[in-house]
Formats: sequence, C-alpha cells, structure tokens
Amino acid sequence: MTRVACCQLAPVVGQGEANVAMAHSAWTAAVAAGAELVVLPELVTSGYVFASAGEAKSVARRADDELWDTWAAELAGSRAAVVAGFCEAGDDGRLYNSAVVLDATGVRAVYRKAHLWDAEKAIFTPGSAPPPVVDLAVGRVGVLICYDLEFPEMPRALALAGADIIAVPTNWPRTERPAGEHAGEVVIAMAAARVNRVAVACCDRVGVERGQDWNGGTAVIDQSGWALAAADGAVTVAAELDLAASRHKWVSPRNDVMADRRPELYGRLTGP
Amino acid sequence: MTRVACCQLAPVVGQGEANVAMAHSAWTAAVAAGAELVVLPELVTSGYVFASAGEAKSVARRADDELWDTWAAELAGSRAAVVAGFCEAGDDGRLYNSAVVLDATGVRAVYRKAHLWDAEKAIFTPGSAPPPVVDLAVGRVGVLICYDLEFPEMPRALALAGADIIAVPTNWPRTERPAGEHAGEVVIAMAAARVNRVAVACCDRVGVERGQDWNGGTAVIDQSGWALAAADGAVTVAAELDLAASRHKWVSPRNDVMADRRPELYGRLTGP
Repeated sequence: MTRVACCQLAPVVGQGEANVAMAHSAWTAAVAAGAELVVLPELVTSGYVFASAGEAKSVARRADDELWDTWAAELAGSRAAVVAGFCEAGDDGRLYNSAVVLDATGVRAVYRKAHLWDAEKAIFTPGSAPPPVVDLAVGRVGVLICYDLEFPEMPRALALAGADIIAVPTNWPRTERPAGEHAGEVVIAMAAARVNRVAVACCDRVGVERGQDWNGGTAVIDQSGWALAAADGAVTVAAELDLAASRHKWVSPRNDVMADRRPELYGRLTGP
Repeated sequence: MTRVACCQLAPVVGQGEANVAMAHSAWTAAVAAGAELVVLPELVTSGYVFASAGEAKSVARRADDELWDTWAAELAGSRAAVVAGFCEAGDDGRLYNSAVVLDATGVRAVYRKAHLWDAEKAIFTPGSAPPPVVDLAVGRVGVLICYDLEFPEMPRALALAGADIIAVPTNWPRTERPAGEHAGEVVIAMAAARVNRVAVACCDRVGVERGQDWNGGTAVIDQSGWALAAADGAVTVAAELDLAASRHKWVSPRNDVMADRRPELYGRLTGP
C-alpha cells in the first residue's frame, strides 16, 4: 500500500516566499508521516487571483528554479515524490500554469495546464504538450491541473498510457451543489477514477482570495471511484492506496474496461 | 421544460407477454401524466438473466416487430417518444441487446449495444454502429445501453453530435458502495452529464431475477450533473428538464466545454 497525501493549503496571492515556506512545511510533514506521494494545490507558490500578468510574473519561477533542487535534495534517501502547482516563467517569456514532479533525483517533469479556466486565459499561455506519466519509485504518476480533469479524454489518455494514479493540483472556485452531494468537480474525479480503474488524488486549496472562495474539495480516490479521505477541515488529507490495482482493468470475469473499448465507433458520430 | 420519465420496472425473464403488458401500462401512464420522453429499462420486454441463447431467442423481437407499430399508433397526436430496451432477433440470425426509439410516426431508430457486459457476451453480438442521435419533436435524443455509458467516449460522441439528452435503458447489477454515496454507475452518469453539459436519463430495473439483484439506480440528471429525481421505491421517476440548455456549453464567461477541447493533445500519449 502507498500512502498518498494532499495538503489543502491557503496560499496568498503574491506572497511568494510565505507560500513556499508553507508548502515546504506541509509536504515535509506529510513525508515525515509516511506519505510517498504528496500533492500540493495548483499555483501553490504564487496564489491564484492575480490582478495582472505583471503580478503573476513577479511570483513566477522557472522550470529549473533552484527551489526544486533544494526540495529534491531534502528527499534524498526517500522513495517519495512531490507534485506541486506553480506559476511558470517560460524561456519564451510567457507564463504557464504548471505543475512540477520532484523526487530525490530532482525534477522529473514539468507539465503546463492545457485547458485554462476563465481569467487564466488573460494571464497564461495554454500548454502545447500532452500530460506526462512519470515512472517514479512509488509508481507511474500522471499529472493534470484542475479544469484539465473535466475533459474525460485527459484521464483516459493517462490511464491508457499506464498511469497508476493521477495527481491533480487544483483550485476549484466555489460552486453550488445540492445538499448531500460532493462538489461537482469531485463527482467528475470519482467517475474518472472508476471508468479508468485508476487512482486520482485531487489537492484543492482553501482561503478566500480577493473575494474568491473555493470548494475545498480535496479527495484521495481509489480505483473504484470512492473517496477514501475527505478534507473536513484538515490541512493534509491522506489515504493508503493499492497502486498496483491500477495495472489490471478487470471489472467482471469477462470485462476489462480498456480491452472492451470500441475506438472504431467513437469517432464516427456527426451532428444530426 | 420537458417532462422526462423513467419507468423502473421488474421484468421477469422469459415472460415476454407479461413484460410487454407491464411496459405498455407504465409508459402509457407516464405519457398520460405529461411525460414527453419515456425511458424503459434494458431488455424490458424479455428480462435479463437468460439461462441460454435459446431462451433469449424465444423472447426476441425484430427491429420491425409489429409491437412497435402498435405502440407508435398509440402516440398519435402526441409529441412524446419512448425508448425501450429489447432482445433483438437480427436478420442475420444473431441476437442483439437493443433499444428502440419510437414516436407517433413509428420506429425512429434501433440501437444495438456496443459494449456487452459479462455473460451477455455468451448470448449477444455487440453492435457495429455508433449510437444514434434522433431528432425528435421533443429534442435530440441520444441512446446508450447500460455498460456503454461507462466508456466516456460514448456520451462525449453523442454530445458532440448534438444530443440534448441521452436516454440510457440499463440493468445495473447490484454493486457495493459506501454509505451516503450514489451507485457507482450513477456517479458515472452524473459526471457524463456535467462534463458534456447534456441531460442524461438512466432507467434501471428492479426485481430479483435468478438470484441477481439490481441497483435500482434510475436517475434523471440535468446538464449540471445533478439527479433531479431519484427512484426511492417509485416505479416511475419523472423530472422537468430544460433540454434547450444542452445547446450551449458555456460554464464561465470564457469557457465553453466543447470549444475548450484540445483534441490535438488527446491521442499523443503512449505508455512509459
């Protein structure tokens, strides 16, 4: 079993150093408590509700920022990995809403969010590469960021590429839901897990920022689509997952959810 | 608003005439109560747990069975449509797990389930055509059958092809779920509705059949993914839906869930 932790933090927009310190404190505590995969929120080092591209630029970091080397060095001797959202300053001068995957050997991947939400479109450039599946000591970790998960093609592609778990740094703006229901984004994450037989770890944020509140919908979801740990006010949400279970796709004696696909049918529909 | 009804019946395997009478009674009552789209369970005229292909054949009907003409004639003067699962005897001598779409003008479509569940593989031939979107007076109705819905490509394709609502005749074998959760299949249906901004009407069955129990998970789901009516023991579950809402895909001032797709990225992942 693998202990997966999500640290549902409350970053403050523009407070780069304080956010980094908070994120560092949270992930090191989670690793000390036995977590082998720690997921942090989207844009955790920068905050989210930027007033301008200039403000975002002021707290942006490069994909090879020395912060990542510092964090990786602290993982020396551990199998653990950290997935963290950050505001990326690209070599091309553009800003990306990115996530870094780190382990003891350093930066293993940087993924740039491909589907931008609302005002992000005024700040960030969407990524042009598909999301990665990173073969780590802990297992094969796929990465998506927030709204990416609402495109079912994305978790499907990661599962088909062999992901054991999909780590999803997210900032889910507060949405309405009927009493007794999970947030709509959590329903989507649960279904993505179940149809693909892949674990999903969504790390949301909290803390009202320039009037924007959040769902606080952090969830560690198993391959059957059930949330094993919900936040309920805790900063760090952790659960034990059998990541090896993602490597078979059997759901009945005669049904394998991937072998049963009929891709020859999926592209043949056109409008009426 | 359009009244959509699902009749969560308890067919008995092999009792073809009694099942037809029960289904007829249920859909005519639903139409009399104002429903303009009525969905009946998968294999409602035949029952589900067949002991053999021979038994299935004994209760099979053709796509042009006179029963459909009889039912369609009763819809004369009405905008209403009925979607019903049945055991189809194909011209090719094979059996299909099919659904018929009827309105006052007659049979509008027959869809053959493309993804077969478990022992169905020993009885039925999977369909070789994509699911239809039928342009009815009540709106554009897409059709899937049970396990089809667990392939996210299927509701996606129907939504891209312009479906306002997806009608899903189903027989969901009883599955375990944590306290307070919907059945896993309902979670999948809710997510399919939400990510595609399309209504979904799932009509499950009840009635233990040869030891097999069912989820009884009938749900009429709106374009935000919320179940507006759950079965709770009622035979017919009905809700008012704004089907026109499926024709825009806006979820924020700058986000349209279809226009935001990045299909150029979805096929580029390969295994690690």
